[in-house]
Amino acid sequence: MQTIISLRRFACLEFIFLAILSVARGADEAKDPPLSDYIRPLVGTQGEGNTYPGPTAPFGMIQPGPDTNGGKFCGYDHADPILHGFSMTHLSGTGWWDLGDFLFIAGVGEPKFFPGSDKEPRSGYASAISHDEETALAGYYKVKLQDYNVWAELTASDRAALLRFIFPESQQAWILTDLKHVLHWDVVWSHVRVEDESTITGYHLVHGWAKERHLYFAARYSRPFKRFKIVSDGKPVVYGGDRFRTRSEIEGGALRFQSRREAAGANLQFLAQYDTKKDDVIQVKVAVSAVSAENALKNLDADLPHWDFDRVRAETQKKWDRELSKIRIEGTQEEKETFYTALYHALITPNLYQDVTGEYRGLDQNIHQARGFTNYAIFSLWDTYRAEHPLLALIEAPRDADMVNSMLAHYDQSADHLLPVWSLQANETWCMIGYHAVPVIVDAYFKGVQGFDPERAYQAMKTTAMNPDYDSLPDYDRLGWVPCDRETESVSKTLEYAYDDWCIAQMAKALGKEDDYRHFMRRAGSYKNIFDPVTGFMRGKDSTGKWRTPFDPNAHVDVTEGTSWQYSWYVPHDVPGLIALYGGKDNFIKKLDQLFDTGKPIDRKNEELYGLIGRYWHGNEPSHHTIYLYSCAGQNWKAARRLHQVVRRQYGNQPTSLSGNDDCGQMSSWYIFTALGFYPLCPGSENYVIGSPALKKAEIHLSNGKTFTMTAENLSDKNIYIQSVTLNGKNWTRPYLPFGELKNGGSIVFHMGPEPNKQWGVEDEGESTK
Amino acid sequence: MQTIISLRRFACLEFIFLAILSVARGADEAKDPPLSDYIRPLVGTQGEGNTYPGPTAPFGMIQPGPDTNGGKFCGYDHADPILHGFSMTHLSGTGWWDLGDFLFIAGVGEPKFFPGSDKEPRSGYASAISHDEETALAGYYKVKLQDYNVWAELTASDRAALLRFIFPESQQAWILTDLKHVLHWDVVWSHVRVEDESTITGYHLVHGWAKERHLYFAARYSRPFKRFKIVSDGKPVVYGGDRFRTRSEIEGGALRFQSRREAAGANLQFLAQYDTKKDDVIQVKVAVSAVSAENALKNLDADLPHWDFDRVRAETQKKWDRELSKIRIEGTQEEKETFYTALYHALITPNLYQDVTGEYRGLDQNIHQARGFTNYAIFSLWDTYRAEHPLLALIEAPRDADMVNSMLAHYDQSADHLLPVWSLQANETWCMIGYHAVPVIVDAYFKGVQGFDPERAYQAMKTTAMNPDYDSLPDYDRLGWVPCDRETESVSKTLEYAYDDWCIAQMAKALGKEDDYRHFMRRAGSYKNIFDPVTGFMRGKDSTGKWRTPFDPNAHVDVTEGTSWQYSWYVPHDVPGLIALYGGKDNFIKKLDQLFDTGKPIDRKNEELYGLIGRYWHGNEPSHHTIYLYSCAGQNWKAARRLHQVVRRQYGNQPTSLSGNDDCGQMSSWYIFTALGFYPLCPGSENYVIGSPALKKAEIHLSNGKTFTMTAENLSDKNIYIQSVTLNGKNWTRPYLPFGELKNGGSIVFHMGPEPNKQWGVEDEGESTK
Repeated sequence: MQTIISLRRFACLEFIFLAILSVARGADEAKDPPLSDYIRPLVGTQGEGNTYPGPTAPFGMIQPGPDTNGGKFCGYDHADPILHGFSMTHLSGTGWWDLGDFLFIAGVGEPKFFPGSDKEPRSGYASAISHDEETALAGYYKVKLQDYNVWAELTASDRAALLRFIFPESQQAWILTDLKHVLHWDVVWSHVRVEDESTITGYHLVHGWAKERHLYFAARYSRPFKRFKIVSDGKPVVYGGDRFRTRSEIEGGALRFQSRREAAGANLQFLAQYDTKKDDVIQVKVAVSAVSAENALKNLDADLPHWDFDRVRAETQKKWDRELSKIRIEGTQEEKETFYTALYHALITPNLYQDVTGEYRGLDQNIHQARGFTNYAIFSLWDTYRAEHPLLALIEAPRDADMVNSMLAHYDQSADHLLPVWSLQANETWCMIGYHAVPVIVDAYFKGVQGFDPERAYQAMKTTAMNPDYDSLPDYDRLGWVPCDRETESVSKTLEYAYDDWCIAQMAKALGKEDDYRHFMRRAGSYKNIFDPVTGFMRGKDSTGKWRTPFDPNAHVDVTEGTSWQYSWYVPHDVPGLIALYGGKDNFIKKLDQLFDTGKPIDRKNEELYGLIGRYWHGNEPSHHTIYLYSCAGQNWKAARRLHQVVRRQYGNQPTSLSGNDDCGQMSSWYIFTALGFYPLCPGSENYVIGSPALKKAEIHLSNGKTFTMTAENLSDKNIYIQSVTLNGKNWTRPYLPFGELKNGGSIVFHMGPEPNKQWGVEDEGESTK
Repeated sequence: MQTIISLRRFACLEFIFLAILSVARGADEAKDPPLSDYIRPLVGTQGEGNTYPGPTAPFGMIQPGPDTNGGKFCGYDHADPILHGFSMTHLSGTGWWDLGDFLFIAGVGEPKFFPGSDKEPRSGYASAISHDEETALAGYYKVKLQDYNVWAELTASDRAALLRFIFPESQQAWILTDLKHVLHWDVVWSHVRVEDESTITGYHLVHGWAKERHLYFAARYSRPFKRFKIVSDGKPVVYGGDRFRTRSEIEGGALRFQSRREAAGANLQFLAQYDTKKDDVIQVKVAVSAVSAENALKNLDADLPHWDFDRVRAETQKKWDRELSKIRIEGTQEEKETFYTALYHALITPNLYQDVTGEYRGLDQNIHQARGFTNYAIFSLWDTYRAEHPLLALIEAPRDADMVNSMLAHYDQSADHLLPVWSLQANETWCMIGYHAVPVIVDAYFKGVQGFDPERAYQAMKTTAMNPDYDSLPDYDRLGWVPCDRETESVSKTLEYAYDDWCIAQMAKALGKEDDYRHFMRRAGSYKNIFDPVTGFMRGKDSTGKWRTPFDPNAHVDVTEGTSWQYSWYVPHDVPGLIALYGGKDNFIKKLDQLFDTGKPIDRKNEELYGLIGRYWHGNEPSHHTIYLYSCAGQNWKAARRLHQVVRRQYGNQPTSLSGNDDCGQMSSWYIFTALGFYPLCPGSENYVIGSPALKKAEIHLSNGKTFTMTAENLSDKNIYIQSVTLNGKNWTRPYLPFGELKNGGSIVFHMGPEPNKQWGVEDEGESTK
């Protein structure tokens, strides 16, 4: 695009030409490259990030992408030079395996029907790849399959993927579909069916992290098959004329079915075979559906009625331009790549999970028609309630409302009458703890997200919080804490329930339910019951009220993915109360300092790879609010130092840049808020906590049409400390940014300097919420 | 009803009361018992019949019934005293296993979660039963579960079953549902879900004879569970608070899921637990759906909105009264039980396979909405095209049209573009040979069955017959025979293709497709190409034209389920041509005599159990037309002798009465036609062949509203020979009954005597078809 800019000076004609080009590419201003150009899909694909580099539309239903040999949680490991092929679905940034449905790979020569053995990963259909022959951009992925001299390119629309393969000359060219391929888990059953000489459909049932996942696909090929073959358990499916021939009877090395056009079983592959000339292009378009093969075909034909690869790619880029323009920043190339890639990662999940017909598979495995909302799936709520959904509430309000409605549908379909915990495509994975659909709903409600029924949502939240079976809720309700002798991770559960209950209480109050408000506010105070003043930590307590003994705050006991050192800061809804438990602000800050400073020298490797600063662990979500507690306690300058440290060392534009699982966008959303200078420490509350901006300027285009502008005057690598703040033209001294000051648009100006102004932001003394 | 009749004399009031009663029971005349009283569901449940004794509505969607330990093809063996329980679906009379979905059994004491071991069949939940404590009537089955002192009663409506259990006093009463139970095959996956405290739903995917069968159920209990339990792989599913807990982690003997209200896996049981007082009745109503659990619930609630067991039973009996009244006979109690039970067995299958919503699962596994027809499934066409469908064309024409439309939908959904061969609930089993959907369609067309599109049906038949993959059709088309070196059962396939092609040709002619007519008539003559004049048998011929050598007409070579002795008679569409091949009428009859008379004495056991008379094998379908060939050759009296022999020894009112698989009603339909005195030797043709009636009188109420009456004057055990025939008032000497003489109603009177009138029925000299 820089070449194009230089052309602008010549003539008016060129200007018009460029204006058209620029509109076509979705850039608002012809002088800037389109925002999607800053997307670096490889960020987070090496190390702990677990993102995947394949193309996707914003919140798209299909995520085609490369799966490497090592079996990374989300399919691809940038450090792995062996590629199995391209599967159609991927999670983004999770710390556990699932999806990876329906792998496609193209090659030449004798085809193989398994990816390769552990010892010899290239003994099957897998191929070597090189990053020198790999491109990953918004809506586009390209790589050379070195073993076959085949180039593969991928793009995706909302519900369909388009694969472009460029072949060498061969009498044995092929495109293989492996229905048995998923990431890590088991394909229980599958079928495949040749619909016509250039169309197939298929299905598989996967017992994975999602315990029962039914998925269909449809694929159309730009060139009719020269020949085709179905392979079952490694044997070609051939015509068999015997009676009772549907059962897999192996005869002469082949499986004798009556039909060679369809087969069913647990291990199926389909092979499209061609003769190719050099540089012959064969494309495959693929769509999925959780409802039926028929719907997969409908999704395919509705989304991709043509074969124009570049058009699909351009349209998807335009969608990204549109989404990314919701926060428009100024900064260096690296800052823009880092920021817009973070925003890209934040706007992939939750994913559309509804066919063009409006049908979707519900948690009850019935097929439902979405009425009055669009259904989304994949709710990594323990992660995303923190910053991802608060971000969506600001800039993606209509979608956030759809997501709330999707969660309410899940509740309606739940045998347990529970809102989602960690839901994955018509399944509850029961991963992690708490009931964090609650803060998502309550934050959306108080942030003015329209389009869901607050009363219905409230009843779902209350019923969830009163569930008689879930994770010791009755004990918690009765005792005031989750007893460590009856329940694992009892400290974390107590703390997170208390916060969720505070959220319910706020909404109860707003809806005039005073009794409920009191009930849930009582529960919101439960955190106090597990604070041990002797050790100064949150500590397991058993059902008789005795502390967990022996106790080690560095032990992984009674705590979810961490230690008491990390979890003892978790009272987002009552930071003054927490500070009081620690004996006041000074003690609190002293303890907070100890979290980061263990006395040992910083281990840069541990910091950059895993996000560890002392005992602080940015690589996992329980720490995400912790730095901001400095601000709440009146020492914003200490927050500034740590925030800039994390931003610089644990984010960036490289494959290794993410220090922890992106977790469906939460790691990235933390960055986005932090770079803008404020953070939703307590979703559901009025206030964001002010940190320290990492960008010179940003325009936030809210979903209500208003624009809120952030400017960080004098910001530099050294000028990271707030000297003063001007909010909507007023001098602003509180370390909080109220939603009320933001929602109608306006501006915040941070005046930055190289030394802390220790007097700024002290006045609230920890009143984070009101 | 006889008690009631004696009351009639007293007063007018009683008369009115009785008239109401009688209407309520569906009996047309108050003095006769309702026809459904003659149904003996146990007929065919011991030996080769393979019927099942459970209740069903005519052509019903659900067939609840008892499954005994031995694993009979259709679930129940009258000779087996150990019962596993009651599953919800059964085939009727097939010679292969499938269905047996979702077993329910009730008991008291410590419940077990497997049926029992091979060595100790009562070591699991199975119970002993006794025929002294068993009743099987129309729409009703009752048995005592001796191991538990529990009485079980079953009834069924069109789409739902109602189970009534009568318990002894127990603190440990239970009703178990085994989702793993099917007949013989494998449950690949299942799930079960507690919808509320008296409702469950479930699903399983079965890899059986039908290669991929998805089925859902819903069950409502008349009493809420006192307690309940889900068991997976023999372990109770208990609440588990660990993360990643959906995967089956065995801990302390239990499977830890987050929810105890739902589970998924390959081996699941659900246990409803109760405290019972003596004679406490707990009922369960169950419906199935191939579409969804939601639809199973809709089927259940639409069909059984109440809990009145006796009402369901009475309504189903009334449905049977209505169906059976389509052929009203005079005869002894035994004759009526035999005849009406045969008619009952003929009117069970094909089965309704469509939910109350109009949705059904198609062959392509998509969910379709049936538009303009009702969808039926289970087409045992190699059997039922012979007499079952010709019977339906006469007395169940609207349903026969629905069945044709169901087969056309199957064709539309077939990856192979083939009409059904042996279809089983959204699956093609590929069982048996030929394309006998063709004679069903063509016979329906020529018998005036309205409600399907002949042109569409024709195209489906032609495409099927020209399929490039199916069972050597291209070779057959090119050579004139199926070559025995390239295809199994080549003799049978050649013969049956030739007949099917003759049917297509007739319809081509009727639709004015002269070229097609000639093409298929050429193929219809293919039978001549495999008749070996030297041996006098149909004989395998290879692709070079060489005969199968060595050749043994008693060998099971090149023939489907039989020998050349049995198959060499199969040219239903050109009996004169067949007779000519044998060198004329005399030689033909001589050979036919040899079929029955091998010189060895008749083995009564082989005859009664398996239907063997010499080499004639009535127990299997290829022989079903053979006796009638005597009539075609002008010796009706020889047919009479053999027909009466078969009727007397191989049919009846006892569990052992059927000498061969009832095959979805074909064995029974042979009996019905034969007892009426004529038989559809060549479905699709104008003529029925006259045999020798076995009933004194019958009124056939045709679907067009006309009545055709058969009277056999002077018929007795000895008077089995036709002396003369009066058809619609005319003396009738031809051994054929043209459809034209029957379709407008009328009468045929057979004048019977003890000695053959060898002059009767000689004139046509084998012209069975024109």
